Amino acid sequence: MNAYDVIFKKRNGGTLIPEEIAFFIQGVTGGSISKEQAAAWLMASFIRGLDDTEMAALTRTMTDSGDIIDLSALNGSKVDKHSTGGVGDGTSLVLAPLLAASGALVPMMSGRALGHTGGTLDKLEAIPGFRVDLSVDELKSQLKTVGCAIFGQTARVAPADKTLYALRDVTATVDSIPLIAASIMSKKLAEGTEALVLDVKTGTGAFMTTMDGSRALAKAMVAIGKKSGKKMLAVISDMNQPLGAAAGNSLEIWQAIQVLCGKGPDDFRELVLTLGVWMLILAGRAGSEPEARKKLESALSSGAALEKFRQMVKAQGGDVSVVDGDTPRLPQAPFQKQILSPVDGVVTSMDTRLIGLLVSGLGAGRSVPGAPVDNGVGLVFHKKIGDAVRSGEPLATVHHRNEDDFEGARRQYLEAVSLAGRPEDKGPLPKVKRPPLVYEIIR
Amino acid sequence: MNAYDVIFKKRNGGTLIPEEIAFFIQGVTGGSISKEQAAAWLMASFIRGLDDTEMAALTRTMTDSGDIIDLSALNGSKVDKHSTGGVGDGTSLVLAPLLAASGALVPMMSGRALGHTGGTLDKLEAIPGFRVDLSVDELKSQLKTVGCAIFGQTARVAPADKTLYALRDVTATVDSIPLIAASIMSKKLAEGTEALVLDVKTGTGAFMTTMDGSRALAKAMVAIGKKSGKKMLAVISDMNQPLGAAAGNSLEIWQAIQVLCGKGPDDFRELVLTLGVWMLILAGRAGSEPEARKKLESALSSGAALEKFRQMVKAQGGDVSVVDGDTPRLPQAPFQKQILSPVDGVVTSMDTRLIGLLVSGLGAGRSVPGAPVDNGVGLVFHKKIGDAVRSGEPLATVHHRNEDDFEGARRQYLEAVSLAGRPEDKGPLPKVKRPPLVYEIIR
Repeated sequence: MNAYDVIFKKRNGGTLIPEEIAFFIQGVTGGSISKEQAAAWLMASFIRGLDDTEMAALTRTMTDSGDIIDLSALNGSKVDKHSTGGVGDGTSLVLAPLLAASGALVPMMSGRALGHTGGTLDKLEAIPGFRVDLSVDELKSQLKTVGCAIFGQTARVAPADKTLYALRDVTATVDSIPLIAASIMSKKLAEGTEALVLDVKTGTGAFMTTMDGSRALAKAMVAIGKKSGKKMLAVISDMNQPLGAAAGNSLEIWQAIQVLCGKGPDDFRELVLTLGVWMLILAGRAGSEPEARKKLESALSSGAALEKFRQMVKAQGGDVSVVDGDTPRLPQAPFQKQILSPVDGVVTSMDTRLIGLLVSGLGAGRSVPGAPVDNGVGLVFHKKIGDAVRSGEPLATVHHRNEDDFEGARRQYLEAVSLAGRPEDKGPLPKVKRPPLVYEIIR
Repeated sequence: MNAYDVIFKKRNGGTLIPEEIAFFIQGVTGGSISKEQAAAWLMASFIRGLDDTEMAALTRTMTDSGDIIDLSALNGSKVDKHSTGGVGDGTSLVLAPLLAASGALVPMMSGRALGHTGGTLDKLEAIPGFRVDLSVDELKSQLKTVGCAIFGQTARVAPADKTLYALRDVTATVDSIPLIAASIMSKKLAEGTEALVLDVKTGTGAFMTTMDGSRALAKAMVAIGKKSGKKMLAVISDMNQPLGAAAGNSLEIWQAIQVLCGKGPDDFRELVLTLGVWMLILAGRAGSEPEARKKLESALSSGAALEKFRQMVKAQGGDVSVVDGDTPRLPQAPFQKQILSPVDGVVTSMDTRLIGLLVSGLGAGRSVPGAPVDNGVGLVFHKKIGDAVRSGEPLATVHHRNEDDFEGARRQYLEAVSLAGRPEDKGPLPKVKRPPLVYEIIR
């Protein structure tokens, strides 16, 4: 076996056997196969594609290049959820304690904000003292005592993925569904859970903007996970508008606590329940959707989920007074100002990517990895798609750091949000259909 | 403009504008664009293809990366011929002096043996003292006094092609017609001729074994040359058997001198005339095929072509006694032994690549660049496709360095040559069609 032959075979559209993929990726990571050869292989794989078996082999090899968290000694069903990222999507913050309160173990390895999307770790760090860099021993101990943990990936998770990603980044081979799916799943396979529910977003604020792309990505990831023996299911959910009523780190912690208290925005709560139901079923803690839903609703209304959240915050060094209603302890922006609607109208669309970039630009996100974030800034959404608004009524509230930031944010927000007025300026406002919350379940 | 966007566009099957190709290739050669990016671009170009304009831009950029011989100050029409390589193809040795004797100037930049094919420079170096490393000033001076020169490319011809070729070699992107065509033509455009005739071989001993491949390569090279303002024509000629009656450096010099004396094998002489006719027409030294042919035949029969060869050998430091009939001054192999036919039969096919490798293995060629060659060794062919042979009659004569080499050569030769015997061992031998010498003219 040699690198040339592997590239040649893929170049001609052949299907590589798992041994060939393992040989090639191990060679690239180990340095015996050159970066040039790796780049040529990536481009050939990008254009020719990789089938399920090839994707699974690539994923497995990347996972095996690093540390794998071994949770087999822990009794109980380990389950995780992974989202492809969106705006206002803080469901992880609720799902980890909610599932733990419902009898599953949730070791949730999460990410940081980048580009227009938020990051669960950044949101949690809005809680004073909260620590995301758990050691494996700390993780195991916390899973035993609390049942859930949200933590950052260590440097040793899937280093081969990092090597390949750095190459893909400069060789225009990032946006390939098989390569994306393998990259995501290589990190999820290192987590040591038996089950994984994927939340694949679709729409203007999603990584995949089209339904076809989202479905293909969901199918690829489900196939990879199943080939590695994981129980898998993907929910394709809407990201044509922000989820819930807030985007920004402190604001989303506040919103998550609302949902954990049984309140919060309907769409956010409903997506939590949808994802939670499948997590519970895959974890073997419920036999049917109604049973799972009932369990989860009860954990929310009883305060058990909130209590798990409090335990998790405490275990990870966070200030629990935040959980107990003292949200002013969360960092807050010095300025809060409303964006008013310039017309009578109905919201017809929201360019969610633009809204995410706006939030990031206010200071909540980062344009390069490692940059600091401002936890206080963000947006609160008062009107979403299908909502009517009168001229002068607020569409959103901007939480901003500098007084001067408002005007730019207002202009950008009004550019992102489309409003339909009365036809010929008379009669009733038009009816606008709200996008569904969930499009498809892939299993 | 940036490297990523150029790769991205080609990856998606887009057509690059000349400025994008120039930017990219200059960046790769200059080091501002990484080898990884170059490899990804090569694979994308391999799979997606390059159109005529893209090929021409790639060729031009590679040519411009190095020295370009400026012969514009020389009066007269400069013309060259380039062959894609074969076995026994020593036509360059005859064409350069023949065309010079017919009124054209021929600055013929030639190559070395590699793989199963011979190299014109190696053949000429069989003449004691012959020097192929001419400076540009020496070349110009010789073109003025003699009218032709055969010389090796300097290190500074198309260095970008060398950089790309080294990458293609390890990334399985060698056998792409656009990339091959651009690579060949980048060196031919550096020569400073106004006209170029290509001899694209097809068959078992050719670089392109199929007619489709040979035609595509011919068309690509003709298109590139025309886009650079060169007068172009390609002859697709047969390489399903060796050309002429000999393969090996001294043996081919001897054969070329035979042809220059108006003798020599028919197929060799006929291909010389076919290529020469087009060279003369493209150089503007003849208005029609019959006129061109008459001029060339006259230059051969009058001894004018041989005289030019003598002048060229002398100018380049070679021993002219070789030209004057003293062929024993050429290196000779100590052993010469015949391969006898094991049966009565007719030659039906010759695996010419295998025959070329046999000659190379005897010491005439090299498996790595720079290795020394043995000029005395080689093969003389007594029977070619369509020829009848009796059991015990010679098929070929092996000129070998070591006595032990014969048996292996004999076995390999008999493996390469197929013979058809009498059907059911009685009656006449079957008729076998000889392959045509020339298949197509591409202009």
